[in-house]
Amino acid sequence: MDIFTRLQDIVTSSRVSNDPAELYCYSSDASYIKGTPDYVVMPRTTAEVSDIVELAQENRIPVVARGAGTGLAGGAVPLCGGIVLDMSRMNRILEIDIRNLQVLVEPGLVHADLNRALEPYGFFFPPDPGSSEMCTMGGLIANRGSGMRSVKYGTVTDYVLDLEVVMPDGAVIRTGGMVMKSASGYDLTSLMVGSEGTLGIITLARLKIHPLPEARAAVLAHFNDLEAAGRTVPAIMEKGIMPSACELMDSTTIKAVNMYDANLAIPDCEAMLLIEVDGSPCSVESGAARVAGCCRELGAFNVTIAFSEAEMKELWAARRLAGAAVTRLNPGRTRVYIGEDVAVPLSAIPEMLREIRNISKRHGLTIMTYGHAGDGNLHTGMAIDTRDREQWEVLKKAADDIHRAALRLHGTVSGEHGIGSARGIYMNQEHGGALNVMVSIKRALDPHNIMNPLKVGLE
Amino acid sequence: MDIFTRLQDIVTSSRVSNDPAELYCYSSDASYIKGTPDYVVMPRTTAEVSDIVELAQENRIPVVARGAGTGLAGGAVPLCGGIVLDMSRMNRILEIDIRNLQVLVEPGLVHADLNRALEPYGFFFPPDPGSSEMCTMGGLIANRGSGMRSVKYGTVTDYVLDLEVVMPDGAVIRTGGMVMKSASGYDLTSLMVGSEGTLGIITLARLKIHPLPEARAAVLAHFNDLEAAGRTVPAIMEKGIMPSACELMDSTTIKAVNMYDANLAIPDCEAMLLIEVDGSPCSVESGAARVAGCCRELGAFNVTIAFSEAEMKELWAARRLAGAAVTRLNPGRTRVYIGEDVAVPLSAIPEMLREIRNISKRHGLTIMTYGHAGDGNLHTGMAIDTRDREQWEVLKKAADDIHRAALRLHGTVSGEHGIGSARGIYMNQEHGGALNVMVSIKRALDPHNIMNPLKVGLE
Repeated sequence: MDIFTRLQDIVTSSRVSNDPAELYCYSSDASYIKGTPDYVVMPRTTAEVSDIVELAQENRIPVVARGAGTGLAGGAVPLCGGIVLDMSRMNRILEIDIRNLQVLVEPGLVHADLNRALEPYGFFFPPDPGSSEMCTMGGLIANRGSGMRSVKYGTVTDYVLDLEVVMPDGAVIRTGGMVMKSASGYDLTSLMVGSEGTLGIITLARLKIHPLPEARAAVLAHFNDLEAAGRTVPAIMEKGIMPSACELMDSTTIKAVNMYDANLAIPDCEAMLLIEVDGSPCSVESGAARVAGCCRELGAFNVTIAFSEAEMKELWAARRLAGAAVTRLNPGRTRVYIGEDVAVPLSAIPEMLREIRNISKRHGLTIMTYGHAGDGNLHTGMAIDTRDREQWEVLKKAADDIHRAALRLHGTVSGEHGIGSARGIYMNQEHGGALNVMVSIKRALDPHNIMNPLKVGLE
Repeated sequence: MDIFTRLQDIVTSSRVSNDPAELYCYSSDASYIKGTPDYVVMPRTTAEVSDIVELAQENRIPVVARGAGTGLAGGAVPLCGGIVLDMSRMNRILEIDIRNLQVLVEPGLVHADLNRALEPYGFFFPPDPGSSEMCTMGGLIANRGSGMRSVKYGTVTDYVLDLEVVMPDGAVIRTGGMVMKSASGYDLTSLMVGSEGTLGIITLARLKIHPLPEARAAVLAHFNDLEAAGRTVPAIMEKGIMPSACELMDSTTIKAVNMYDANLAIPDCEAMLLIEVDGSPCSVESGAARVAGCCRELGAFNVTIAFSEAEMKELWAARRLAGAAVTRLNPGRTRVYIGEDVAVPLSAIPEMLREIRNISKRHGLTIMTYGHAGDGNLHTGMAIDTRDREQWEVLKKAADDIHRAALRLHGTVSGEHGIGSARGIYMNQEHGGALNVMVSIKRALDPHNIMNPLKVGLE
């Protein structure tokens, strides 16, 4: 029996396809990486996933899990053909267990849907990726995602209690449990988080949740000196304040956002910091005042504090526009996600900002920089005419320079988007001998390399 | 050349021993597990550790790392002879890097020394094991320790940014970096945390630190119903309050502590909760009041709030006495650490407390229960005449019952002390197929099983 027929037997024919038009839809994510699968399957149960993986193992066919396809490094793109598992049908919330501060969800659940479901209980799931309305929990976990609030609340790793994983041989394991902490055995949960589908397929996730803060406030500060803005970030923390978010926009981003929505009218300046504090109402009030004072000390002007939800919504909307706004600076060009996710130690933020400026000048390419300055994660935005081969070359060189600058500053090539196939070439430089250990683990658990091959720089 | 001579060549003869008297000192930890090494070596540098491990690998000699020997599960006890690496000479703080919210330390550093060094900067390292004044950072990390404050601040896993590890072949790797978050490659840092020396030897650790809270307060609540005390814990969190500690003592513990220090004069009752909140002064005030209200709602009496550091010190001193006090109930008996570290989901705390009561009655053995109720981690204290074989049998049966009850309630056999060789037999029941994955990783990274063999239930 051929593979297609056997896949139909496992999931019924309505949930498997080898139609080229359908396959085309699964041949890319939100990055520039391309690769077409041979089959797309939409499982509904763990048992189906296990049967599919077993079939793939028997026949040495690559298996690539895919959530919403919002990835920015090609992680869900099938570079060697094979089977794409579209996990979006497994999207239920199975338990909301407030007494145990946890939820049990399927991997295809959209991130924002989880927080909408938790809000009536006064709880939330803190990691908040920019793609919240689209991205799935499985993708977020597989890429060790985070977002704006990781400066205070940590990354997705800190919230995964247990994963059900279909291993490369089809075995179904549970990596953790319901307890809030455990010193029992290897931390397979954290090993699976961020492994980008190269070690197994996540089919269930048990996640910690957190009480919603009683109050929030946002401090908006403008700087005429980009590096002063960068210095402000560690200075705030040195004063013992842990903001719940600390976002930076450079002058190029501000210009682009203003072009996108003229009503925003952000003052023309070198950099803007948007710093959120949360907690009890009184601590938010004093915290915001201290943050504002610290910004002023470091040279900020037009420092304002927003306490109302309406004002804050507006500020965050402006910040969320940044990703889309880059194309306004370059009509006719398309933003390409490349070199867009470096992170550096907090003290190196000013130097990384200077490096990016120099790279922009050197290559004659507009680069906007924005992102989660509170944890050193800087996103860059670059746009080109994607039909122009020369512009591609310039873009790739600029991205390579950005990656190498981050590594020189003891940073990482990816703060939250993952390695996929876009950043695999830097794994050796970033990890040295530790990469050999990763490869040993991969070979031990997936000896025939059927799980998302050619990813994470493992081969 | 024999092994002893080669070890002397590596570390100079003053730091290696095969003297039986010396070896005897390294043949146990704070548990009942015993095993004598053939050599004890005290390395001072990573290069020395690497050379020793290489020598051990060539000759297939077991290598066991040891910090202060405060472990409670035999983790540092050399069950198969071989080399014990006494890491206590590698005890320096190499960097205190406030701007990057991190420190770089050697594994032999005593936990309390780190927090003493950080205090002048207004920072601290949140995980706080009961053995803080003795235990080393390497042991804490290798056992995935935590302590009283993990309910709010998490376990040691949440604070390790990077480890330098000597792998079984002598290779020296770095598992992470200086950045606060990264989505680059497998999380080898978390894999090493809690691996109890079975995958490699930790020679350096880069750790996140946290600003000291501005204020703290402690709520003390007494209950005439043990299960009501258990129900109070999740009820507080359901109200959106995350205490910085939430400790429970049952009536037996209270009795023992009062016998130990009559000045404490804790009211004779079924259970006592000691709940700490921290943060800004005003949020601490309102938080403590809400916690106290919640305790009263659930039936507590004599609910008091301590705001002064002096009062709180006294309360915590009473709590810290619990571990030692058990022997007061049983003069002539010795406390044996066994079945002492289960953790269950928060909602199962009342049932676990009931189970322990029943086990105590069934075996006619006094069991005191206390511990970190805020994260479901309950410590039990049992004492016997260790020369009496029958009492040993009763003790072991009671401990087995405690472990099995915790697993039945979706708990774990170890919340923070580790598996060592004391709890290996439960690994299969607790982890099922995931244990096979752990074994595969162990075999891939340590094919000749020289790293702390017979531990963590891996064989």
